[in-house]
Order: sequence, then structure tokens, then C-alpha cells
Amino acid sequence: MKTILLKNRPKGKPQTSDFEFTESEKPVPQDGEVLLETKYVSVDPYLRGRMRDEKSYIEPFKLNEPVESAVVAEVVESKNEKFKKGDFLTGMLQWKEFQTNTGKGLRKVDKDKASLSAYLGVLGLTGLTAYFGLKRIGELKDGETLLVSGAAGAVGTVVGQIGKIMGCTVVGIAGTDEKVTMLTDEYGFDAAINYSKTDDMTAAIKKAAPDGIDVYFDNVGSYTLDAAMNNINRFGRVVNCGAISLYNETEQPTGPRLETTIVKKSIKMQGFIVRNFEEDFQEGIQQLGSWLQEGKLKHEETIVDGFEKIPQAFIDLFDGKNKGKMVVKV
Amino acid sequence: MKTILLKNRPKGKPQTSDFEFTESEKPVPQDGEVLLETKYVSVDPYLRGRMRDEKSYIEPFKLNEPVESAVVAEVVESKNEKFKKGDFLTGMLQWKEFQTNTGKGLRKVDKDKASLSAYLGVLGLTGLTAYFGLKRIGELKDGETLLVSGAAGAVGTVVGQIGKIMGCTVVGIAGTDEKVTMLTDEYGFDAAINYSKTDDMTAAIKKAAPDGIDVYFDNVGSYTLDAAMNNINRFGRVVNCGAISLYNETEQPTGPRLETTIVKKSIKMQGFIVRNFEEDFQEGIQQLGSWLQEGKLKHEETIVDGFEKIPQAFIDLFDGKNKGKMVVKV
Repeated sequence: MKTILLKNRPKGKPQTSDFEFTESEKPVPQDGEVLLETKYVSVDPYLRGRMRDEKSYIEPFKLNEPVESAVVAEVVESKNEKFKKGDFLTGMLQWKEFQTNTGKGLRKVDKDKASLSAYLGVLGLTGLTAYFGLKRIGELKDGETLLVSGAAGAVGTVVGQIGKIMGCTVVGIAGTDEKVTMLTDEYGFDAAINYSKTDDMTAAIKKAAPDGIDVYFDNVGSYTLDAAMNNINRFGRVVNCGAISLYNETEQPTGPRLETTIVKKSIKMQGFIVRNFEEDFQEGIQQLGSWLQEGKLKHEETIVDGFEKIPQAFIDLFDGKNKGKMVVKV
Repeated sequence: MKTILLKNRPKGKPQTSDFEFTESEKPVPQDGEVLLETKYVSVDPYLRGRMRDEKSYIEPFKLNEPVESAVVAEVVESKNEKFKKGDFLTGMLQWKEFQTNTGKGLRKVDKDKASLSAYLGVLGLTGLTAYFGLKRIGELKDGETLLVSGAAGAVGTVVGQIGKIMGCTVVGIAGTDEKVTMLTDEYGFDAAINYSKTDDMTAAIKKAAPDGIDVYFDNVGSYTLDAAMNNINRFGRVVNCGAISLYNETEQPTGPRLETTIVKKSIKMQGFIVRNFEEDFQEGIQQLGSWLQEGKLKHEETIVDGFEKIPQAFIDLFDGKNKGKMVVKV
């Protein structure tokens, strides 16, 4: 069986050479453990942060040790009475084809209710990120104007759709014409902007949302955030969910100072990670699950095949090669 | 009687030549009006914003028309049954020695409870700014670590004292040794930093608050904000009350991008103006009033004498020439 280790801390954009594959024997579960076979692996932009040797809300990955992310795995052998062979579990697991685990922090998923990969996306941390980001941080109200960047990504597509469910005007920002068309035609966004073909983002947002932005759900940071701030309404809220445009920077990036706008317009900018809302996850999963079953929530996935493709799939996130949630099927 | 008009929109730091004095006859109150004699005039940094020809939460001042700010005035003649001769009123009034007014938006002040000038400071908008900024925006909790910039100013001195009343560790930032000594010796701050003698603000804050900052009450913006962000704790809150260091900038100021920190540490940055809490002013005035009467709240004032000194007193704010609230006695 194969394991993927972090070989080097990436400098700038991660390279496949930053990862190393090793071979070993399948482990044997001890009493109280299960043997898990990895089925689906989630690759997410935030993992880039854990590859830095920096204190953060979560321990950095260690060099020459396995990377971990959200995974759906099947119980192939159980010495834990809470789980039986054939159960599917999800949670934070290592990038290994097989691994043993006590099951602590893992939860069972029902493959009849949704596809297994959905538990890494719309019914997993990405869906919950969209849900709690909009509800608790953005305090989005019915009928407001919502702008979302990284709109064609895993979180962005859910954010926009929740906005539409709430009767909001929704504008998305994405990086290709194909994505922009998908947002308006398939996801019902009111407008979408292709930033890679737009010189003046401030003007483009103004055109798409002439009455200004009430909530900006920011996945990218940098000049997109600046342009959103130029269009934000009084009492506007910025949901700082991610800053993918900055994750590979090696120098401290600079930009216009935002504090004058923040004061003048009584703006709230607030960052979060979805784990802050861990106690309320059940509420979010339930709500997202019913929207999914009612057909109100579509979910797009980019599924890459093969355990050995995990590093490249992760790297491709930074080139926006995914539509919706990027998942590797093992 | 004299009136002060805005003659030019200041470029950079305001000059006395941006203001013009005119002479006219005392006005005569009509039915429903009172004739007011100006007693104390508040000069405040936020007025700089209204001197720009920019859309904001409040109309910009018009050229060749009177400037207005918070004022305490005496009723010298009344044709309004709600007010009688000898009453003292406060509210937004023009920079005039005498003016007529219907009394709408003005409230009576009790000169036996506190000095008249206190109603422009600790019991006026500045005290309320400190109170609601800390309580509602900063969500300051007992025992946390509070950093405040512009600490020796009108708002800052109240902020720090409320922090101490709440049992917090309080660190202030000010611009002279005299102010720094005043903060620790007279106001009970735990530590204070003289930014004008500090090369590395990040290190200075770290030294003063080794466990990091939970709430940063920002009156100045710019590199002081950056240094505070370098020391902020997870779930920290930034109260964006003002950005006096930027108000006179003529170019868009730039600085390090803060969004990565905001996301990584789940930070809230929120701007406000005190009027957002207008409905709850009575709560704030009552609380501040009892602290004042219990001797828990000192208030410092820099009182400048003479109507004709108003423009210079305003300009002096930007050189930090005030300790506590800057007020002009007419």
C-alpha cells in the first residue's frame, strides 16, 4: 500500500516534488480499531497553510510524515463494536490507501442518501463552510445583494445557491468563460464576472450590482477584495473565508489600506474556519441535506481518478482547474 | 456676532486659511424657536471627513457655509415652550456665536451633575463612542487584553478606563512621554507605548502584552493597526473607530494585506460610528454617568479659550496637541 508524505515545504506554488510516495505493508487493526480503505480524498486550498512551518489554529504538517485531509473510507475490518465491515466513515484521515483508526472524530455516512463524494463537498466541510459563513458571519438577509469570489469552486457554488434560495441578488466571480456561463445558466446566479478578462474589477462589479454589495463572501483576497470594498454598501459584511490568491506568496503582499472604508461605512470584515461552528454541524448538515433532496442545491464535482493523482489534484486547485469540489477517487 | 465658514476643502492637513470668519447681526427667534448662545464647541477628528466632497454616512460640509459640530449652548431667549431661558442644550450646532434653532435633535444637560464641557466628552459622543465601541463592536469580556491607540485622546482615555473597570489588562499607544506617563500613572493603564520613540511597534506591543491582544480599539489606522494585527490572538476583535493617521492623506495609502491573518485567526474587524447606536444612547449615558459619579472614570479635557481659536484647535488634533477631549470655550 502507498502513503503520501510531505517531502518539502512548498516555496510558492506547490510542486509534485514536494510530495513523496512510500510503500509499506497494510497495517493490522488492534482491539478497538478499524482497518479503513480510502475511497475518496478531499483536496482543499487551506491545506497549503498547513504545509508552512507556522503556528496557526491547527498544527502544521510535519516533514516526511503523511499529509491528511477529509476522506471517505470503508471499514474493511473492525475490532471496534461501534463500526462494522462495510460501514463508510468520514473525517480527517491520512493520505494512505489503508490505515487503522479508533474511529474517534469520524462519523458514519449513508451512501443511499447521497453519493459518497458528496460527504466531502456539499454535505461536508465545504457545504458547511458556505452555510455557516453566510448565516453566522455574513448575516445574509433575504433580498440583499451577495457577491462571491471563487464562485465556481466548491464553497462558492454552494454560497451562491444559498443566496438564491434566500431570494438574494447573487453575483459571482470566476476565472473562465465556461465557469461564468455555468454560474448563470446552471446555478441561477444573476450575473457573473470573468476576472481573467476584466481590467477594472471595481467597474465590473458596479455594473453587475449597481445598488452595491451587502455581503461579500471572499475566497480569494487581494485585488478582488479591494474591488468588492469599492462597491460595498453601508453596514456591509465581508466573509473572509479564504485568500487563495495569497497562499503561495513568499513576500508579504501589500494593497490599499481598507480601514478608512471600514470606519466610514460601518463595515464588518470577519474571518472564520468552519470548525468554529463544530457544535452546530448537525443543523447545517440537516439543512443542506434537505435542500439537496428538494433539488434546490446542485453540486458540481471534479473527480480525479487514482491515489497517485492526489498531489497533482491539490496543485491544480491553485490554477482553478476544478469546477465545484475537487475530489480524488481512490 | 461671528460665524466660521468652510472656505476651502483642505488638501492634506487643514490650514487656518481653509476657514473664514464672517460678521453678522444676531438672529431673532421665530415662534417655536430658541436663540442659543454657544458656550462650548467640540472639535473632533471625524470632522475632517465631512470637509471632503465625498459621499459618506453624513452629508459633506458645503463650501462657504458654516461648519457644525457638537456644541453646548445656553438658551438666551425662548419662543418654544419646551425650553426656557437659562436652559443648557447640546447637539449638533453651527460654529456661530449665536443661532436660532427649533430644538429638534437637541437635549437638555444638567450643569449640576457634571461640567458643561463633560457633555461634549465623557458624557457626550466621545464617551458613547468608547462605550458602544467596546461593548457592542469589541465585545470586550472581563479579564481580556485590550490595546487602544490614540489612547491619550478623548475616546482613548475613556476606552482604557472602561477596560480597567472590566478587569482587563490595558495597553495604550500615544505620541509623547508625557502622555504615556499620564496613561499609566493617572488612568491606571497597565502599560503604554510612545510610538514616536518606537521603531518596532510589533515588538513593543509584544513586550507590553506577551499573551497577545484580544481587542484592539483603533483610533489611528495604518502601521499601528498592522502592528496590532501582528499581535492579535485567535478570535480577536478590531474596533475600527477611526483612522486619524490617514485622514489627511491625499493619495490612497497602502500597507500589508491583512486578509490572511483575518482568516487564519478568525478575526473580526468592524467599523462603526456612534450614531449607529443612537437608540441606546440613554443606556450609555446612564452607565458613564454612574461611573463618573462613583469616581471610577476620570476625564481629561484640553480647553482652548475663544471662539476665534476653533479652527486652530481642530487643526491641533492632527498634531496630537490635546490630552483627552479637545473643547473650545466660547
